[in-house]
Amino acid sequence: MTSIENIKRRCEANAKSHGYFLTPDPEFLQNLFEGLKENEERYGYGACPCRLASGNFEWDRDIICPCDYRDADIEEFGQCYCALYVNKDVFDGIKPMEPIPERRPQAKVDQAMGKTTKSISTSSETAETSDTNRKLYYCKICGYVAFREEAPLKCPICQAKQEMFGEIVFNIGIKAR
Amino acid sequence: MTSIENIKRRCEANAKSHGYFLTPDPEFLQNLFEGLKENEERYGYGACPCRLASGNFEWDRDIICPCDYRDADIEEFGQCYCALYVNKDVFDGIKPMEPIPERRPQAKVDQAMGKTTKSISTSSETAETSDTNRKLYYCKICGYVAFREEAPLKCPICQAKQEMFGEIVFNIGIKAR
Amino acid sequence: MTSIENIKRRCEANAKSHGYFLTPDPEFLQNLFEGLKENEERYGYGACPCRLASGNFEWDRDIICPCDYRDADIEEFGQCYCALYVNKDVFDGIKPMEPIPERRPQAKVDQAMGKTTKSISTSSETAETSDTNRKLYYCKICGYVAFREEAPLKCPICQAKQEMFGEIVFNIGIKAR
Repeated sequence: MTSIENIKRRCEANAKSHGYFLTPDPEFLQNLFEGLKENEERYGYGACPCRLASGNFEWDRDIICPCDYRDADIEEFGQCYCALYVNKDVFDGIKPMEPIPERRPQAKVDQAMGKTTKSISTSSETAETSDTNRKLYYCKICGYVAFREEAPLKCPICQAKQEMFGEIVFNIGIKAR
Repeated sequence: MTSIENIKRRCEANAKSHGYFLTPDPEFLQNLFEGLKENEERYGYGACPCRLASGNFEWDRDIICPCDYRDADIEEFGQCYCALYVNKDVFDGIKPMEPIPERRPQAKVDQAMGKTTKSISTSSETAETSDTNRKLYYCKICGYVAFREEAPLKCPICQAKQEMFGEIVFNIGIKAR
Repeated sequence: MTSIENIKRRCEANAKSHGYFLTPDPEFLQNLFEGLKENEERYGYGACPCRLASGNFEWDRDIICPCDYRDADIEEFGQCYCALYVNKDVFDGIKPMEPIPERRPQAKVDQAMGKTTKSISTSSETAETSDTNRKLYYCKICGYVAFREEAPLKCPICQAKQEMFGEIVFNIGIKAR
């Protein structure tokens, strides 16, 4: 079982490795760690402690912490949706922490919420098939490659925007004489 | 439009996430941010503020900041070509900031410079076709995969050198009995 | 030739970029840098200074520093096998540095050790062929792609565990009417 200590260490290392900070309020931080631990125990993965997860891995994938939206939110607002991860200005109190808009597309929220009333068997089938929707995307600037349903909002290596991603297509030709 | 604030935050996060620092001279730093902003507005991408960009994305790709040469330059000289990104010794003043040799191959400089006199239509065609020159490279040490025209000078994950990269080749065989 | 200074800078940048620290004992640290330098000169790659390398690149690949086991060891024990890389608790002395179990599978140790008594020609052949055992793995959470013999123990981008990795399989179908 994952301990709070483990989660704390993982979040700290992840923040540092991306140039971020953890929220400066120690009590709030402890609550977020506990939320992550609860989700890990309940779902088997650390879904975002500030959003409602469906329990279906495929449908929650974008909100597994650090979520798909974190880097774009930190760039725009100085903090992620939860304010677990913040930038230096928010950490230093120069910029106030405040509620930010939900960047997760409504369609994903609806899918996840609809899902909670469906049977497990359906969900497994969906989980199975949805992996086939992944494509190989590459960053046109640094060449970073990711296998996802959509290109990431930001390149984790060079911070390029989503528009800078292209799809890798394999052309296999057969020539007949 | 990208604000100076946004560029500052992006550079700060990128420096931290790679273990680097931004140049310690605040006035010089401000000039570099303004150069990046100007390039973003002029070209649609943040070409290096210390080099002459062509305006053709494909030909400038290697000098979009952080440029392809940064990590190798910081390892060898403690700073990138611009000195926007520096290492701890340069940041602390233990090592002086100074002009460093241009690591960008002369052929790339010539291509970009020749380009500025050509018509836009030609440039789009070139941009189109040059993407087909990309290959899948992998780091033999950590397995990192990039889709580029050449292997990166350093692996962004484990810092292995370019010589440690190999090309991924797919063998598709058809057997006839 | 790689200088101690170069190795120091590389390790420092790598530690920062992953949210880690270098061991706080300066004398011990210097010994580790010297061990890395010796290995780079002897083998052409910086094999772990605390393990016995075989000299065969393919067989030592998992113990080239930073080794394949570092991130998992730091998450579990706060330090890598050598204690070259440590987390904040160990760096600050809150957690003592101590010997940790070897995470490298015994089969890999045996292979590398058996190897030292074999001839170079055999080793080159093995090195040649073992690259064909690599597969494309992807992180089911963030989409990170790596070309390796096994999925990494932790995703270098989002820190997901090895179980979260899947294999990318290309289906090329030929339909006959």
